[in-house]
Amino acid sequence: MVADPSNWSCPVPLRHHETVVLGHGSGGKLGAELIDHLFRPAFAAADGAVTDLGDAALVDLERTQAGGGTGGPRLAFSTDSFVVQPRSFPGGNLGDLAVNGTINDVAMVGATPLALSAAFVLEEGLPLAELGALVSSMGAAARRAGVPIVTGDTKVVDRGHGDGVYVTTAGVGLVPQGVDLGPHRVRVGDAVLVSGPIGLHGIAVLSVRDGFEFGADVESDTAPLHGLVAGLLRARVDVRMLRDPTRGGVAATCNEIAVEAGAGIELVESAVPVPEAVATACELLGLDPLEVANEGRLVAVVGPEDAEAALEVLAADPLGAGAARIGSVTATHPGVVVARTGLGGSRVIDLPLAEQLPRIC
Amino acid sequence: MVADPSNWSCPVPLRHHETVVLGHGSGGKLGAELIDHLFRPAFAAADGAVTDLGDAALVDLERTQAGGGTGGPRLAFSTDSFVVQPRSFPGGNLGDLAVNGTINDVAMVGATPLALSAAFVLEEGLPLAELGALVSSMGAAARRAGVPIVTGDTKVVDRGHGDGVYVTTAGVGLVPQGVDLGPHRVRVGDAVLVSGPIGLHGIAVLSVRDGFEFGADVESDTAPLHGLVAGLLRARVDVRMLRDPTRGGVAATCNEIAVEAGAGIELVESAVPVPEAVATACELLGLDPLEVANEGRLVAVVGPEDAEAALEVLAADPLGAGAARIGSVTATHPGVVVARTGLGGSRVIDLPLAEQLPRIC
Repeated sequence: MVADPSNWSCPVPLRHHETVVLGHGSGGKLGAELIDHLFRPAFAAADGAVTDLGDAALVDLERTQAGGGTGGPRLAFSTDSFVVQPRSFPGGNLGDLAVNGTINDVAMVGATPLALSAAFVLEEGLPLAELGALVSSMGAAARRAGVPIVTGDTKVVDRGHGDGVYVTTAGVGLVPQGVDLGPHRVRVGDAVLVSGPIGLHGIAVLSVRDGFEFGADVESDTAPLHGLVAGLLRARVDVRMLRDPTRGGVAATCNEIAVEAGAGIELVESAVPVPEAVATACELLGLDPLEVANEGRLVAVVGPEDAEAALEVLAADPLGAGAARIGSVTATHPGVVVARTGLGGSRVIDLPLAEQLPRIC
Repeated sequence: MVADPSNWSCPVPLRHHETVVLGHGSGGKLGAELIDHLFRPAFAAADGAVTDLGDAALVDLERTQAGGGTGGPRLAFSTDSFVVQPRSFPGGNLGDLAVNGTINDVAMVGATPLALSAAFVLEEGLPLAELGALVSSMGAAARRAGVPIVTGDTKVVDRGHGDGVYVTTAGVGLVPQGVDLGPHRVRVGDAVLVSGPIGLHGIAVLSVRDGFEFGADVESDTAPLHGLVAGLLRARVDVRMLRDPTRGGVAATCNEIAVEAGAGIELVESAVPVPEAVATACELLGLDPLEVANEGRLVAVVGPEDAEAALEVLAADPLGAGAARIGSVTATHPGVVVARTGLGGSRVIDLPLAEQLPRIC
């Protein structure tokens, strides 16, 4: 079975691109279309069952064990490739990002991260000192997070066929008994929280990008979030679902939640914590802070009675400083995210078509 | 902590290269040095404990569970990046390879593969039809093996900063209770087996490489080997350890086994199944078939009494047709692999320094 784009019957398949464009890697609509129309059908099971292909998958560990039943241990499994340019930026580098990003994907399904893998595609000619520094950053980030890198791979490609180094991490974790997070648990009236100020990672990377350099006093928020998640679960906050607003920012994440939960989301624009420096940079560059990537933030949907408790748990951790309730789940406009603006009006927050920024994760 | 090559005190660190060279990705000595001197120290745990960073790691799933003890479930976890050129070759393509290769790494520690992830680094301009064909091959290979692809990621890099598509797969599996494979179980007198004819993958890829095209009647042996492994374990063959002889071929694999087990290996050259077409191509090109990559073969070290039973189990499966005993574990020359040649002499089979072929996995 070979996927032939000319046979795809969906409306406007892949926006009629015949080749890969940068937007396909954006975390926006183009990327979602690639998943829906190309990856998901190709990776369907023999019985036609289609896998979700979310940021992290749950694998039932007892499926293959004798006497396995329901409610057994579930493994969270996730992977991400990291191709950010430049590889170092205020507050972090490709190495931290590769470790923290995969830990966070595992944590967002409620799992305790256990171990990471790291695969490198190196370009011939990369200085070994630079590789050493990158790998040391990865090791340091893994030790900080308490999640070891246990296996890996290295390939070298000819000069001119890479970009120094591409890193792909994968991560595994265990979902604690009784924890069940996901869009199926979202209810009308739920509170939408963010764990801290948004837009810092994207603006930090942009501020040092070739041709874009500007003096923004910002640092990437790159950080491992499994501690925050464990805190929420330990406090028995009724967490419905979690997601980290990386590529496509809070806008993309809220759109994903709205579509997957079949509910509307109403954001209160004035409640979204946008640091002054991010706001200024966004104004200067014509960007929407809601669409800027984050690497150390999570969006949490929690039961309405638990919103305050959740904010307290988040704010008690330095990584959750500045956590805020930014909106609610609504019965109106299912699948659509609307922001109430400062002037009493409202605007639709669409899933970005592609990236508004150069690649930043 | 930043790795500074000038501080490395080991003899001839990284052969004094200051930049990454193609050989660092070869599965030979240069690659091993990169792991020993750069990755392993950087990824050490906070207490200084160094991880093995083997092809597949074992993760103790009960370490973090309340009441966890020994003998609990162990997860096998592995990753590999695939950068083969050309992406299609007689008998397979990059997609099959990415699925089978990772399944095999998981299987070589005795685990039952459960799920795969797939991360793509796409170069802007890659025809979507080609991506579709590749992804379809991956889906088909996953269905054939019965191991689903459950999560993934896509990044797009600027034109000229990739090579069409690089795929990184990771895999997870469960090690059945009581299964314990590894170099620590190898004993003097053990038999060394190979599951079938060697060298087919490497020669198949080489036969269609730019500038090398020649008419060899060979097809890649790319195949998932977890069925063979399950067969051996089911038959209660005393398997000491398994490894798939990919990059660096049987030579590299036997050297790894000898070094890790602290024993010698004596191969009987005339017993190694080298297909006629592989032998001819190797003679033509001045290659050693023992160093040519395989993607559907395993090397098994088994207890001496079980060698015949193991060969029967292997040969009963089409993927094990042509299985043969190729040597023994010896007390002499620990860490060294020696081949008895046809003329009654012997030669040392060294770990290849770098690849003798262009990258083929």
